[in-house]
Amino acid sequence: MIDIPTAARQARTAAHSLAVAAGDMKNAALAAIADALWQKRAAIEAANREDLQRSEAENLAAPLLKRLVFDEAKIADSVQGLRALIGLPEPVGRVLEETELDEGLMLSRITCPIGVIGVIFESRPDALVQISALCLKSGNAVLLKGGSEAARTNRILADIIAAATVAAGVAPGWIHLLETRDDVAEMLKLDDLIDLVIPRGSNEFVRYIMDTSRIPVMGHADGICHLYIDAAADAAMALEVTEDSKCQYVAVCNALETLLVHAAAAPVFLPRLHERLAQRGVELRGCERTRKLIPVAAATDADWSTEYLDLVLAIRVVDSLDEAVTHINRYGSGHTDGIVTGDAAAAEKFLNAVDSGSVFWNASTRFADGFRYGLGAEVGISTSKLHARGPVGLDGLLSYKWQLRGSGQTVAPYAGGQRKFTHRRIEKRG
Amino acid sequence: MIDIPTAARQARTAAHSLAVAAGDMKNAALAAIADALWQKRAAIEAANREDLQRSEAENLAAPLLKRLVFDEAKIADSVQGLRALIGLPEPVGRVLEETELDEGLMLSRITCPIGVIGVIFESRPDALVQISALCLKSGNAVLLKGGSEAARTNRILADIIAAATVAAGVAPGWIHLLETRDDVAEMLKLDDLIDLVIPRGSNEFVRYIMDTSRIPVMGHADGICHLYIDAAADAAMALEVTEDSKCQYVAVCNALETLLVHAAAAPVFLPRLHERLAQRGVELRGCERTRKLIPVAAATDADWSTEYLDLVLAIRVVDSLDEAVTHINRYGSGHTDGIVTGDAAAAEKFLNAVDSGSVFWNASTRFADGFRYGLGAEVGISTSKLHARGPVGLDGLLSYKWQLRGSGQTVAPYAGGQRKFTHRRIEKRG
Repeated sequence: MIDIPTAARQARTAAHSLAVAAGDMKNAALAAIADALWQKRAAIEAANREDLQRSEAENLAAPLLKRLVFDEAKIADSVQGLRALIGLPEPVGRVLEETELDEGLMLSRITCPIGVIGVIFESRPDALVQISALCLKSGNAVLLKGGSEAARTNRILADIIAAATVAAGVAPGWIHLLETRDDVAEMLKLDDLIDLVIPRGSNEFVRYIMDTSRIPVMGHADGICHLYIDAAADAAMALEVTEDSKCQYVAVCNALETLLVHAAAAPVFLPRLHERLAQRGVELRGCERTRKLIPVAAATDADWSTEYLDLVLAIRVVDSLDEAVTHINRYGSGHTDGIVTGDAAAAEKFLNAVDSGSVFWNASTRFADGFRYGLGAEVGISTSKLHARGPVGLDGLLSYKWQLRGSGQTVAPYAGGQRKFTHRRIEKRG
Repeated sequence: MIDIPTAARQARTAAHSLAVAAGDMKNAALAAIADALWQKRAAIEAANREDLQRSEAENLAAPLLKRLVFDEAKIADSVQGLRALIGLPEPVGRVLEETELDEGLMLSRITCPIGVIGVIFESRPDALVQISALCLKSGNAVLLKGGSEAARTNRILADIIAAATVAAGVAPGWIHLLETRDDVAEMLKLDDLIDLVIPRGSNEFVRYIMDTSRIPVMGHADGICHLYIDAAADAAMALEVTEDSKCQYVAVCNALETLLVHAAAAPVFLPRLHERLAQRGVELRGCERTRKLIPVAAATDADWSTEYLDLVLAIRVVDSLDEAVTHINRYGSGHTDGIVTGDAAAAEKFLNAVDSGSVFWNASTRFADGFRYGLGAEVGISTSKLHARGPVGLDGLLSYKWQLRGSGQTVAPYAGGQRKFTHRRIEKRG
């Protein structure tokens, strides 16, 4: 094994090659990964069985064991994902804008890769295939660290991907698999070699990374998502949307954690909600006004700032849309927040005033997801306001550069007033 | 004076109002600033004279004194800049893309402000007007810290701007002027209240900020800019572009610091360059191969990593375009780098392979500037690869959010396979 700084330096050199790699070569390399994964599926499944047996012996929780499975069906899904990625247009070198600064002096803004990406991902081995494929398509080198439960599966997948792509002409060293948490800690120090870290692990781990590294981080720590049931909400719709947001999958970042209910809606809505969510086994915690309407435990101030990721829901009665917005902007994590209302003007006010990556009207918070948004594969969900926000697809792995093409122009005549800029905007082609 | 956390909290609250402020109101507020600056120009000039007298007594260098001047002509320029900004289209709420996820479930990506911006700027008081106006137009609240030389001018300008805008309906507290370096140090700790820091001071200060704050920073520390004179360069053009890049204004980030010359061009080009730059008083430092051709001091490894900001130029002879690109990607700061060549294929290779914010063909590095790029006012120049890169205009002060408008949709039927997404991309209007 080479050490992490050496791996990162190799990745940096490889990234410079990948940045100018032809789209056809990158697509051929993606096809080579797909072929190799399918050919070697028996060996991959064998490695995965070892991971499963070891993890079972170590009493890994059942949902995590399920995520760890990488069988023939999952391999076929990954191969299909790779074929879909090949079909996407070349993301690098796209002209974003063009301006003629003066006759014969043409400025273009062009997409380019970010460089070297460090990705720390959860136990699903298919994430390794998806992330490395996205990085390759977008011309980025990648250092990967998966869950230790999937160590053998990740190792064989990374080896297969490295061999297949290098044989197809990709610069060696563009992909490295890190093995330990110490490797990650070392990687997080290399802010001169690594351009972006994407952590997809537990909240605690994401926060640790945000706190310790100087490398920019794309991702989210908390997902404290809200629904606000407006005075003008249809009660049946509000019940449906609340139940789906809370219960459809509780352990994920876009699940509902706090429900805000307008005082005018609460007397009818809350008893019905109480009955409905009891059937789903949801524990409710309410503010004082909530507890006058339904018999639930008291919510403390800490509840407004807690991401339960469990069958627990905090409820607060508010007197106005403004109060709901203020609560969300204060306690929310900028992930996903929604309003249920029949009042279009109230909805528009909410959509504009709530300062979150995704803001919904009459729809479940669970829709906040790259696949559901039609972005194709998802890199992650960002609660940062810079670069990429909300669900992030291939675009989040791209930067841009300015290219200026001249014929010997100097600044002196413009500074001296002898020449003037035309700044003629060129219409986008295609 | 209120303390910095209080100021930042006020700014955050004001930012939430500004994010939903109507374009007409923001433009009226910008007009109110313009009117107030012009009406109160005598008081502004008086405050500026105090700053000038004090700074002169403290022996501030002449170029800095010149930048400090804010007289009637400069005030008129600022007023003109404000009028131009009013004329720009509303930047907030622009639809970037729209996708129908399913019938009656419409996803839009919309521009929105970043939130609260901290800006640390140099001695020019016009920067205060420009930055606060850009923040207002883009719906951001701002904490400003100017050079201490301009303390009285900045104070009166900030007071005038705050009073005029609040009278026009902008939320109070949207603009705060910090007074001391301690204030800045306190601000840099408030990563829960401030979304972005833009430092425009000295390199050392920018690096201190990047090193100490967890708040994202937009800007650049170094500007180690290169020109590569290719074998196929026109010698006269190469001389012109090199001289302008180095000498047109030496103390700025886009000035040339290292010249790379192809071995085939060096024997003719370097003696002519030596003669020409001697007339401009430029000290040359060369690699061994350079020193065999012209009598200059030896460049050490440190020279390749130094931003002189002075009449000094490091020169290295290289054997190929690849070697030039490798040198630039290793020693450069990702700011601005150019090639001079008559060979279009070589130029394209260079433009794509050099990993910098601005990459030029046959043009002076001094063109890397927001005004010259036609961006209108410039927020700064970024050497980061995330969010904004190269010269940054109003767009760099914007983020985006996803808005989803439905009619009660839940995720369960999509997860269960009863419903499928259409993911129909809507053509952009306008």
